[in-house]
Amino acid sequence: MGFHVDSEAGRLRRVILHRPDLELRRLTPSNKDTLLFDDVLWVRRARAEHDGFADVLREWGVEVHLFRDLLEESLRVPQARSLVLDRVFHEREYGPLATGRLREAFGGMPAPELASWLVGGMTKREFLERYSEPVSVRFHALDVDDFLLAPLPNHLFTRDTSAWIYDGVSVNAMRWPARWHETVHYEAVYRHHPLFAAGGFHVWCEGQAAYPSTIEGGDVLVIGGGAVLIGMSERTTPQAVEMLAHRMFSAGSARVIVALDMPKGRAFMHLDTVMTMIDGDTFTQYAGLGMLPSYTIEPGTGESELKVTDHPPEHMHRAIAAALGLDSIRVLTARQDVHAAEREQWDDGCNVLAIEPGVVVAYERNATTNTFLRKHGIEVITIPGSELGRGRGGPRCMSCPVERDAVPGIS
Amino acid sequence: MGFHVDSEAGRLRRVILHRPDLELRRLTPSNKDTLLFDDVLWVRRARAEHDGFADVLREWGVEVHLFRDLLEESLRVPQARSLVLDRVFHEREYGPLATGRLREAFGGMPAPELASWLVGGMTKREFLERYSEPVSVRFHALDVDDFLLAPLPNHLFTRDTSAWIYDGVSVNAMRWPARWHETVHYEAVYRHHPLFAAGGFHVWCEGQAAYPSTIEGGDVLVIGGGAVLIGMSERTTPQAVEMLAHRMFSAGSARVIVALDMPKGRAFMHLDTVMTMIDGDTFTQYAGLGMLPSYTIEPGTGESELKVTDHPPEHMHRAIAAALGLDSIRVLTARQDVHAAEREQWDDGCNVLAIEPGVVVAYERNATTNTFLRKHGIEVITIPGSELGRGRGGPRCMSCPVERDAVPGIS
Amino acid sequence: MGFHVDSEAGRLRRVILHRPDLELRRLTPSNKDTLLFDDVLWVRRARAEHDGFADVLREWGVEVHLFRDLLEESLRVPQARSLVLDRVFHEREYGPLATGRLREAFGGMPAPELASWLVGGMTKREFLERYSEPVSVRFHALDVDDFLLAPLPNHLFTRDTSAWIYDGVSVNAMRWPARWHETVHYEAVYRHHPLFAAGGFHVWCEGQAAYPSTIEGGDVLVIGGGAVLIGMSERTTPQAVEMLAHRMFSAGSARVIVALDMPKGRAFMHLDTVMTMIDGDTFTQYAGLGMLPSYTIEPGTGESELKVTDHPPEHMHRAIAAALGLDSIRVLTARQDVHAAEREQWDDGCNVLAIEPGVVVAYERNATTNTFLRKHGIEVITIPGSELGRGRGGPRCMSCPVERDAVPGIS
Amino acid sequence: MGFHVDSEAGRLRRVILHRPDLELRRLTPSNKDTLLFDDVLWVRRARAEHDGFADVLREWGVEVHLFRDLLEESLRVPQARSLVLDRVFHEREYGPLATGRLREAFGGMPAPELASWLVGGMTKREFLERYSEPVSVRFHALDVDDFLLAPLPNHLFTRDTSAWIYDGVSVNAMRWPARWHETVHYEAVYRHHPLFAAGGFHVWCEGQAAYPSTIEGGDVLVIGGGAVLIGMSERTTPQAVEMLAHRMFSAGSARVIVALDMPKGRAFMHLDTVMTMIDGDTFTQYAGLGMLPSYTIEPGTGESELKVTDHPPEHMHRAIAAALGLDSIRVLTARQDVHAAEREQWDDGCNVLAIEPGVVVAYERNATTNTFLRKHGIEVITIPGSELGRGRGGPRCMSCPVERDAVPGIS
Repeated sequence: MGFHVDSEAGRLRRVILHRPDLELRRLTPSNKDTLLFDDVLWVRRARAEHDGFADVLREWGVEVHLFRDLLEESLRVPQARSLVLDRVFHEREYGPLATGRLREAFGGMPAPELASWLVGGMTKREFLERYSEPVSVRFHALDVDDFLLAPLPNHLFTRDTSAWIYDGVSVNAMRWPARWHETVHYEAVYRHHPLFAAGGFHVWCEGQAAYPSTIEGGDVLVIGGGAVLIGMSERTTPQAVEMLAHRMFSAGSARVIVALDMPKGRAFMHLDTVMTMIDGDTFTQYAGLGMLPSYTIEPGTGESELKVTDHPPEHMHRAIAAALGLDSIRVLTARQDVHAAEREQWDDGCNVLAIEPGVVVAYERNATTNTFLRKHGIEVITIPGSELGRGRGGPRCMSCPVERDAVPGIS
Repeated sequence: MGFHVDSEAGRLRRVILHRPDLELRRLTPSNKDTLLFDDVLWVRRARAEHDGFADVLREWGVEVHLFRDLLEESLRVPQARSLVLDRVFHEREYGPLATGRLREAFGGMPAPELASWLVGGMTKREFLERYSEPVSVRFHALDVDDFLLAPLPNHLFTRDTSAWIYDGVSVNAMRWPARWHETVHYEAVYRHHPLFAAGGFHVWCEGQAAYPSTIEGGDVLVIGGGAVLIGMSERTTPQAVEMLAHRMFSAGSARVIVALDMPKGRAFMHLDTVMTMIDGDTFTQYAGLGMLPSYTIEPGTGESELKVTDHPPEHMHRAIAAALGLDSIRVLTARQDVHAAEREQWDDGCNVLAIEPGVVVAYERNATTNTFLRKHGIEVITIPGSELGRGRGGPRCMSCPVERDAVPGIS
Repeated sequence: MGFHVDSEAGRLRRVILHRPDLELRRLTPSNKDTLLFDDVLWVRRARAEHDGFADVLREWGVEVHLFRDLLEESLRVPQARSLVLDRVFHEREYGPLATGRLREAFGGMPAPELASWLVGGMTKREFLERYSEPVSVRFHALDVDDFLLAPLPNHLFTRDTSAWIYDGVSVNAMRWPARWHETVHYEAVYRHHPLFAAGGFHVWCEGQAAYPSTIEGGDVLVIGGGAVLIGMSERTTPQAVEMLAHRMFSAGSARVIVALDMPKGRAFMHLDTVMTMIDGDTFTQYAGLGMLPSYTIEPGTGESELKVTDHPPEHMHRAIAAALGLDSIRVLTARQDVHAAEREQWDDGCNVLAIEPGVVVAYERNATTNTFLRKHGIEVITIPGSELGRGRGGPRCMSCPVERDAVPGIS
Repeated sequence: MGFHVDSEAGRLRRVILHRPDLELRRLTPSNKDTLLFDDVLWVRRARAEHDGFADVLREWGVEVHLFRDLLEESLRVPQARSLVLDRVFHEREYGPLATGRLREAFGGMPAPELASWLVGGMTKREFLERYSEPVSVRFHALDVDDFLLAPLPNHLFTRDTSAWIYDGVSVNAMRWPARWHETVHYEAVYRHHPLFAAGGFHVWCEGQAAYPSTIEGGDVLVIGGGAVLIGMSERTTPQAVEMLAHRMFSAGSARVIVALDMPKGRAFMHLDTVMTMIDGDTFTQYAGLGMLPSYTIEPGTGESELKVTDHPPEHMHRAIAAALGLDSIRVLTARQDVHAAEREQWDDGCNVLAIEPGVVVAYERNATTNTFLRKHGIEVITIPGSELGRGRGGPRCMSCPVERDAVPGIS
């Protein structure tokens, strides 16, 4: 019954999703870049698309936990509520004059309301409709439509904030401030929600304590058999990879990590935007990614803690295969002209979610990639993503598996 | 029979649309900004949405001309073909070595094929699949996937490139290079297509000759009774407004122009992204627009050619009403919080197309604005725009009326 | 004889400067923006200009402490050395594999060498010329010319990192990461350098603990008589102002703070780039600043801790005068055309350093402003700043007074 | 007697320079990017530096023509005055209402005043201090401190706008609008100034007619013996190179052109910012340039007009040597760390002006490069460039040779 994720493509049993709500209605042309979105989206439609995604998963027997429910239920636990409010309402952020008043106001809210504002954010105007204005330069200096509490639209991408790797979870230190508060929420959930409070799993990373050693779940692929594949991207740093290796090897939960040296930049935001795993030995890869330098990290012997072997770009696939104990891996890359390939990558053509070996969920808009996968024997279940896709994240980004089997035959 | 547009909201009879095709498949994350798009779009879906738009218009009795057909039919006329090829394949662009060879290659194509490449663009690779490489530094220095001929995705927005104002058409000098070739195509159509070759209408502006005096149709509202409302925006300059005034007054086709001094910038790209007319005295206006300084331009008396009267911002609506000979105009602005209003403006909430007085076509995604209009007695027909809207243009932007009645009672 | 700064324009007795060196030679066109500089500068010439600045001060009887000496002398004290190395070489930054090795290498350096690298930064290549490569993904993934330890060119602006206000010092939490390590150095100096180790002064802010409540010395004017004027800018937040008020009022060291709500942005980087004080009641102010909303903060009575009074923009000067107990203040603004005024502000025309009432040091390049001040009875001593000025900081920015008298007659 | 430039490094006899004035005082932090400058500069100092540059040239026997004088003297010729005013004051720019009035006002000015405003630009305020306001929307819509006539600060870089190549001059079509009016001025000078009116030279390019086939003098090196080296950069296009080849080969004035395929971007703005020629077979080259693909263009035989041979990057130097009829060329590249090299390139370390074989003028700030050249036997005369250098142009950029001998022994 415990939580564990033993592969990328084995039978998916339980997953956390986040249903779009107020936080996405907050996006505007002016604030979207700061909030890491490329466009505003129509939330009612996005929610319908997301409901369709959840339905597909449920139909295939996956149990779906909605993050908003988990947060609300956690906030009923006094320690969880304190943990969150202490972190969010801090003097360094709100000043000595307003902090107490704000903490008191939010502390007095019922759990559902509190969860809504924490995720959806609150403007100064919305605060003033409910409470009186504190004596505070910090508060006074805000414009009435400014956010007193920033919205967290990236909660949609549950993949990133926490990542289950074999028998433990990494509660991640996120790269950009727009996502820092997400981590606090997951800390509260994993420590205090009834579902997780009993423990029985490792914690690989504790978000707050780790920054600027940052790691995001989109860069982490649990490729199976004690191996992990990690992209060192704009958002995931080498030092974070070393720390994860250190802890997982100590616990005996992993035996090898392959780290890829990715280009840094938004186009290659996370590893899973250019490469994902869809069967025990099969990956889909974006044509424009090319081959990357890689490092194999293993437990050290004698005095040195870790053993690090580096590989030239052309050995990238070989290094991954070796970590899996295979002679080779199968990499599927749709052949398209460079413009079309760049478009489908942008639209998350590679960002599919496997629900069992050889069966994946994908956006319908990436027709070329989907057809290509089908021709190679992969079953592709499509969902609409006209709105969801505007955040530059596909089915894998929007899901956080908390229970998934190994792929049979791989260990 | 003749072509004329006597209002913004009178019975719409004939219109030019452009059905999305190859040119939109050319958009990528890397080139979209240069091509003036905010996002790539899924062309198959965009085309379906556009077909729905055309259907609505036909159902309401509007005759729809597709631009692609007009261009192709024009290219069957030798003079039109020469006009276009001479402009597009010029030594200044392609150099003395390649120009002749390219003009010859394209000149030999059947009209449908030529029209496709002219609008959709052609990469060096595509050229080399059909023709041999010319001896040319200009050609050689291109990467194989670079565009030899740039695509024209903004043809989608037929509103801008030519604008019918009463009994004549302005073939516009466009602000940005990404749209310059569109104008050449319209020159060929209006001069040589059988539908227009007989003439009988004025030409207010000839694109090529006018730059850098630029004007785009999205800034021009034919508000009726010989009055015109023009936004002086990032793309439409005061000197272009003066030239238009000069020509229309000389022809006796207009009697007054009201010019608004708009903020310059992409968010307020064209006047019709923030303000449109939906009945003989009724406008819809974006809450964030505010009031603008305006100028009333009328024929001069005696020695001076034009009479210019300027008004402070607070008299903006009064100046428009006066031009219409009315005591006041009705301005509908949906009340929303500033974030929501900014979102709906971005999604073309104001960019509706009237098909007869009080009946408009709008994107379904702008639910708040649409509901508001309905509550004020406007009939709102919605169309999907998940894909189409990514180019930042709504139903008005995507339509070029060539025949429209006056609103009864207004003249 | 202790350290205290009782005014902006009283007799200046002791100051900390930083002589340009390796850290400025590190600036390149590629890295200058991240390092907060607008241009690269010719360091040999910049150093000559800076030496001239120090000479002027010494000639006027000011004792000059060079920061580099203070840092080196502090690093001879084991606790100071540990404090700095612990902060700089941390696992979160360098990973579990390399951190120990790096700390060991730097820990073994003599103080002068250590001080040089800490301020000047070190590339991977420079490290490898001295030490062997550690087994570390973090280290390995660096390019050979990347900075292993980032340079700190902004140490030039000693004004910002620590600010003496009456009988205490604020060791500041800086806004941008490029300056965070500067604070660590000042903590070591003020705690452990023989000059300061005896204490006898307050510490208003401890940098590390305060972020994201940030404040920088360029925004703080000690206007005299227990009053402080603070600009809330891009870099100084309201919550930091509140915290400072809280501590200074508790200690009885200040009796009123006036906080100005400045435009946020690089052009108005710090208050002293647009407004400085040059005599007991006289300020110089940039023509383009205009009037700003302001807040008067005073000790509260009864239950509320602070009393906050807000003033509309037009009362800005009145609020400052009231804090000084004066009927009015004298504000000198050079009349120039808007283009010239913008240029001189950019070149630090307002950023003068008073060395006694009515005597200031200024860059010679701001001829219009300097002539204007002279016509109003101010003695202006000029120094060249062709190179120094490229960092957008003038004489005030480049100086940290640690001992300055009150202006006679003001208390 | 005649004008001709037969080399890059032969005896320099006559040159056009432009002394900094009003146009550079117009630069502000807000407009500098549009005007293609990286920083504002102190004009009085820049002028002194420039006077020093001119003095060095005169001391070495070079006759210096100041552009401002040439322009003023040309404007005394009615045809030159008409040519300039017709181009500058055009209806497309100023509208039908204001154009006549403006042309009349400027047409009535004495030549010195007219030359000053044409180069220095004029604000609306300055116009209104001298003339009454025309009835014009175009004029009215300007803010009072906006430029009615834009300043031309890049006239400083006389190298670019016209380029003498052997026995003719290319009056260049410039890449960016900020420099278009410069070309008009040179057209007037070369056609109508007494010095040039007698002709006797070819005109390789006529600016206006050539755009968008653009070429700038900074990309053109007259390497001697009928060979020309051209950088195809952000600003110089392949089609312009082809056109130049066509005309020069037809006239028999050149026999070979080597065109380099440079990276496009501001850092590599012109070829002479990364590579210049300092003796008959010697070049100085920036370490960061690397080797580039190149094309050798020669007159064709039989039916094809030109012969084009392309070379891989590694053959770049060989292709240049072959064009010169040499076995090899000598390329001097100062060895520095990558950061220092990038800094000196930015500061125009390579942009030296040869005044006879082996004798060059350089900015003193590039100490490493200058020392390196001296060690290789080059005589380096230094001039200060603290201010001048802020426009990213060195001695070569600031000079337009109109008479220069061949390097003895090279033909």
